[in-house]
Amino acid sequence: MPRYALKVEYNGAPFAGWQRQADQPSVQGAIEAALAKLEPGAHTIAAAGRTDAGVHGLAQVAQCDLEKDWDPFRLSEALNHHLKPLPVAILDCAQTDEDWHARFSAVERQYLFRLLMRRAPATHDAGLVWQVAYDLDVDAMRAGAAHLIGNHDFTTFRSSICQAKSPVKTLDEIRIEWQEGLSGPEIHFHLRARSFLHNQVRSIVGTLERVGRSAWVPDDIRTALKACDRAACGPVCPPQGLYLAGVTYPNDPFAD
Amino acid sequence: MPRYALKVEYNGAPFAGWQRQADQPSVQGAIEAALAKLEPGAHTIAAAGRTDAGVHGLAQVAQCDLEKDWDPFRLSEALNHHLKPLPVAILDCAQTDEDWHARFSAVERQYLFRLLMRRAPATHDAGLVWQVAYDLDVDAMRAGAAHLIGNHDFTTFRSSICQAKSPVKTLDEIRIEWQEGLSGPEIHFHLRARSFLHNQVRSIVGTLERVGRSAWVPDDIRTALKACDRAACGPVCPPQGLYLAGVTYPNDPFAD
Repeated sequence: MPRYALKVEYNGAPFAGWQRQADQPSVQGAIEAALAKLEPGAHTIAAAGRTDAGVHGLAQVAQCDLEKDWDPFRLSEALNHHLKPLPVAILDCAQTDEDWHARFSAVERQYLFRLLMRRAPATHDAGLVWQVAYDLDVDAMRAGAAHLIGNHDFTTFRSSICQAKSPVKTLDEIRIEWQEGLSGPEIHFHLRARSFLHNQVRSIVGTLERVGRSAWVPDDIRTALKACDRAACGPVCPPQGLYLAGVTYPNDPFAD
Repeated sequence: MPRYALKVEYNGAPFAGWQRQADQPSVQGAIEAALAKLEPGAHTIAAAGRTDAGVHGLAQVAQCDLEKDWDPFRLSEALNHHLKPLPVAILDCAQTDEDWHARFSAVERQYLFRLLMRRAPATHDAGLVWQVAYDLDVDAMRAGAAHLIGNHDFTTFRSSICQAKSPVKTLDEIRIEWQEGLSGPEIHFHLRARSFLHNQVRSIVGTLERVGRSAWVPDDIRTALKACDRAACGPVCPPQGLYLAGVTYPNDPFAD
């Protein structure tokens, strides 16, 4: 059966997360239902990152196996047709080798976290940002984030229900940028790693926010990391500012 | 009665427009209902621009007269409380002279039009952009737009139901910028004038889009303008990309 890679964008608001669930809407379930319109029967797709409820995708990557030899462009058009009116869109599609795997072949994941700084409730960006009512100190957050770069035991920044075998991960980058959005100033956190622990990004951003509002000094991030203790983490920030922004493979299936 | 200026942001999607209507939701009606929670009775507010159904506000300016001497910050907080969960937010509030008028004192309006260029349906930006499936030629649109700057009879670019006494207006600026959005490349059209005719921005952007995709040459814009004939206009583009982005007054009520 030919295998296809799908680049998927979605608004996570109406979904209980990426992963299919029996009684709740999911992004995986929506795409599998669309596939069943093209080739009747049960479909099971896999993705590079199983995002939580309310988390968004800008360029999630999934794989599907189909009976027919589909033209990739026609496949993406047909899926987008059947996905309407859900906020899920296939941005790109490519046929891959049969040993390519959306999850296991990935060598890097990129996440974006958007934080809107203003007092009035968000309107256009409601559900798409985490909102705080005060300005944050970007330089202090950058100094705090620097302690997290590299290979560390991230037990402090890991959900207690995380299923990864080891809490040791290598975080390659945390880039923090001030950006003027249409609705006010935003902070964008860009994180890159081979893989992430459950709630790692939201735990890190929630803790850095404490530094940004001067409740913590940057060195407190190092202390929290070294503690290897979930209780040393700041508050986990809410999901609606988080976006799976990209996935890297040794051979980019969408390169052509 | 003390008069207050309100800076208002809203997502136009759930509303039949700014203006209050007997049987449909409106932004004006939503704010007047919130005011009635603070001071019982009927309220009538006025705004700098009465946006159409689906059109958004980034910094609409409205006025209201109240019995009580409200602290402006407390007034905006109370209104935002009562506006929930509607996508309408009071960004700023100030007490003004009694002869200041949100509409008649305004000396300039600024509009933004967002156009997203990609084939896959918008997810995060659904209802917030006009989407076309192809890339547009920005330089050609700029050359076309240059013909519209200055004092002209804009009959071609005016709705047939426009109630303005004269079709002659002075357009001060059309700035056209390519911008990388989170969901793909966008074109932002920034327009500035003392005042606009009904559907003028959407008529201009819809016509410039013809130039952007090379169906028209830039000089065709001049020909259309000189025709002073509604039939010479390109298609009026849809409302969901349009934002009232700002209003200028000789003395900015929000300056402090």
